[in-house]
Amino acid sequence: MAAPKKSSRAPLARLSALAVWLLAAAVALTAGQAPRVEAVDLLVRGGAIVTMDARRRVIPNGFLAVRGERIVAVGDAAEATRYRAKTILEAGGKAVLPGLINAHTHAPMTLFRGLADDLALQAWLTRFIFPAEAKNVSREMVRAGTRLACLEMIRGGTTCFVDMYYFEGDIAEVTEAAGMRAILGQTVIDFPVPDALTPQLGLENAERLIQKYKVGHPLITPAVAPHAPYTCAPETLAACRALADKHGAPLVTHLAEADTETRTILERYGQRPILHVERLGLLGPRTIAAHVVQIAADEYPILARRGVGIAHCPQSNMKLAAGVAPIPEMLAAGLAVGLGTDGAASNNDLDMFEEMDTAAKLHKVMRRDPTVLPAQAALEMATIGGARAIHMADRIGSLEVGKLADFIIVDVSSPHQLPNYNLYSTLVYATKSGDVETVAVHGKLLMRDRRVLTLDEAAIRRETAAFRTRILESLEAK
Amino acid sequence: MAAPKKSSRAPLARLSALAVWLLAAAVALTAGQAPRVEAVDLLVRGGAIVTMDARRRVIPNGFLAVRGERIVAVGDAAEATRYRAKTILEAGGKAVLPGLINAHTHAPMTLFRGLADDLALQAWLTRFIFPAEAKNVSREMVRAGTRLACLEMIRGGTTCFVDMYYFEGDIAEVTEAAGMRAILGQTVIDFPVPDALTPQLGLENAERLIQKYKVGHPLITPAVAPHAPYTCAPETLAACRALADKHGAPLVTHLAEADTETRTILERYGQRPILHVERLGLLGPRTIAAHVVQIAADEYPILARRGVGIAHCPQSNMKLAAGVAPIPEMLAAGLAVGLGTDGAASNNDLDMFEEMDTAAKLHKVMRRDPTVLPAQAALEMATIGGARAIHMADRIGSLEVGKLADFIIVDVSSPHQLPNYNLYSTLVYATKSGDVETVAVHGKLLMRDRRVLTLDEAAIRRETAAFRTRILESLEAK
Repeated sequence: MAAPKKSSRAPLARLSALAVWLLAAAVALTAGQAPRVEAVDLLVRGGAIVTMDARRRVIPNGFLAVRGERIVAVGDAAEATRYRAKTILEAGGKAVLPGLINAHTHAPMTLFRGLADDLALQAWLTRFIFPAEAKNVSREMVRAGTRLACLEMIRGGTTCFVDMYYFEGDIAEVTEAAGMRAILGQTVIDFPVPDALTPQLGLENAERLIQKYKVGHPLITPAVAPHAPYTCAPETLAACRALADKHGAPLVTHLAEADTETRTILERYGQRPILHVERLGLLGPRTIAAHVVQIAADEYPILARRGVGIAHCPQSNMKLAAGVAPIPEMLAAGLAVGLGTDGAASNNDLDMFEEMDTAAKLHKVMRRDPTVLPAQAALEMATIGGARAIHMADRIGSLEVGKLADFIIVDVSSPHQLPNYNLYSTLVYATKSGDVETVAVHGKLLMRDRRVLTLDEAAIRRETAAFRTRILESLEAK
Repeated sequence: MAAPKKSSRAPLARLSALAVWLLAAAVALTAGQAPRVEAVDLLVRGGAIVTMDARRRVIPNGFLAVRGERIVAVGDAAEATRYRAKTILEAGGKAVLPGLINAHTHAPMTLFRGLADDLALQAWLTRFIFPAEAKNVSREMVRAGTRLACLEMIRGGTTCFVDMYYFEGDIAEVTEAAGMRAILGQTVIDFPVPDALTPQLGLENAERLIQKYKVGHPLITPAVAPHAPYTCAPETLAACRALADKHGAPLVTHLAEADTETRTILERYGQRPILHVERLGLLGPRTIAAHVVQIAADEYPILARRGVGIAHCPQSNMKLAAGVAPIPEMLAAGLAVGLGTDGAASNNDLDMFEEMDTAAKLHKVMRRDPTVLPAQAALEMATIGGARAIHMADRIGSLEVGKLADFIIVDVSSPHQLPNYNLYSTLVYATKSGDVETVAVHGKLLMRDRRVLTLDEAAIRRETAAFRTRILESLEAK
């Protein structure tokens, strides 16, 4: 379109030329935007969008638009033309899901993966895990183990995890650098541990962590983590509760995992674990309780009333022979239940796809009813249900406008997934962690086409090998 | 080395020149072979050789030499220099295992994967599986489904499977073309099925299959497969036994899967399923019984005495809520137990690594004992134990001189497998089917560095998509 230029024509002709130019410019401007193209940062185009929203909509050929850290549009692929973005992810023929939420793990324990398996619980803990921890857990080890854990979790489609370990401040720095979202619980325990000789020091560590990552940090939510009712005296548990309340922080704990715990707590305090911690005020709307295998009928309403979130860890509970948590009953009672892998020493991986598959199958056989915990319910526990269980359902767990952009793109056309009649079935019963192709958290890509962007895999291999040698030597040296 | 040539020198000098040449030639010849280099067809060099031999040797840095279809040497990598081969597979840092044995599946049912899940058994069978089979099972469908199954199984490290379906002759041709080893049982059942309107016709199909693949075929072992005690009258079962005995063929059957079966058989014949089929002579040293969940204390010795092999299918039994087979008790009773995935409609995959992981964990939690079924025992069920269960332990299941060269090379350095302290733990609790890199059966490579060599993956995708459409349409049309 030529710009108006000085002319020798009459003023009227010049005015009319100007009018033509203005009209043309207006048309050009409109055409350029028509019908109003909005700029976003990230556009996922095509693919089945498994929203996990309240209506559990699955948009067979959809799109997802992200600006900054938030989802700004979800809909049918036809509407995607209204958006332009520098980064476009083509997801045609794939599935787009909310990022998976691992509601219970101990990230650094990846470095103890397979160190000691198939042992009685006491022998496992006292002969291997506790000595290995006492001799090896350091800030450096925790950082290396968390890097390995984040690498594995990102590669398997996990975008958010709930952790509980030592040196949680170091875990926080590594997790933030990896770009993952996490609730990180600093362990408080009555016996001396690598980062605290007393529970008082553990509480101080926890408060320092909370003050550093004040509520509102984009990725890291600091938390207080009393280890368990059998390793923390009533006054320790009460102090943890007070600290969490003082800062409005989550409280993460193991609860009612094994029958040995039930017996111990009954003996010591005259009550079962859930009633015992209820009496101490440990249960509340920011509490995340892992395992909860040993639950009596009268304890469901307590957990429901208190708004406690449950982290169900089926594979860990199976491998350590803790028992099977009554998840269908918990869901029927309206409890918020998420899924966790537990640490790699007791699973031995951080694979949420296997956890979903196992959960769905385990509860069917326990109740001799194949209709129990269908595929969709298992996927819920790893997404929106998990978000509820960790008290973050207002921000994550589903693909909806306004939520944080934590999503994954999953191949659903591998030979082991075909023919793919029902997407929920395909995702829960046939999809493997290796089918995850792309992972985004807080609007930022962490993995694209199976290449992890935020971690140096070669360096992680090297430091893992070095720690392997060191850990083996530490166990040989008495 | 120069050849002797006509010379003008004296005869003695010429003779001495000849002697020198002969000596030099002898030295050259010896040097070329020193210290006797043997020609083989395939050499796997480096890698931890998990032999699964009687001593369960694991050679940390070993080699495997194959001539024709057999293993001719296994040992320390240092000895590998004694062999030369056109094809050398470098396995340094990886694990070399006997090929996995899937002791029970229905290969063509991959095309029904995920068609109907989470339903009560009767609804699942009568509303979906039986109508889908009645309307869709054809020679063409069975071939397409088997191709998809073989692709998935090869990619997951399975080298041998036991099948039971219709048109088993077509399954045999596809399996042979894919290069896999299999025991293929032609189904005999009392109601009309796609390849036989009567059990008599089923028996004729079975005999035709046996006559075509006479005992001794390199890959395919034909078998008779009476479906189950509740779908076959006593005379049908007896006729199956007679046919199998006539030809020395294996007999494959479902046995004691669900409590509904136990009730039905008790009602009809006044005995529990195992005793019922024992009375009919169905149990013998070539019988492979799938599931065997419902077993009473007095039935163990019967199965042991008869030399029956058991195909344990934990994931299918969980998903269909059949129950949990008492595997630790069976192993303690000396029974031969293998692992099976069952068909993809009830699992929903053919993944033996997941099956091992699930088996090891399931029996721990059932007995509240984490020492039950350790990793090595789970791997045994998928290799040498599986070979015993399918009555082929003299030929496959371990890496030993004289056995058939069915082996797989598995990556053990993926992030989800590190640091790898104990190879059995790594393989059972942390390895995924996607970690399998190379697969050989009968001395022939079927997959190399994750590229399947014997099947056309693109063509399989196309035909799977076509059958998907056809199957969905068949179910919509009433």
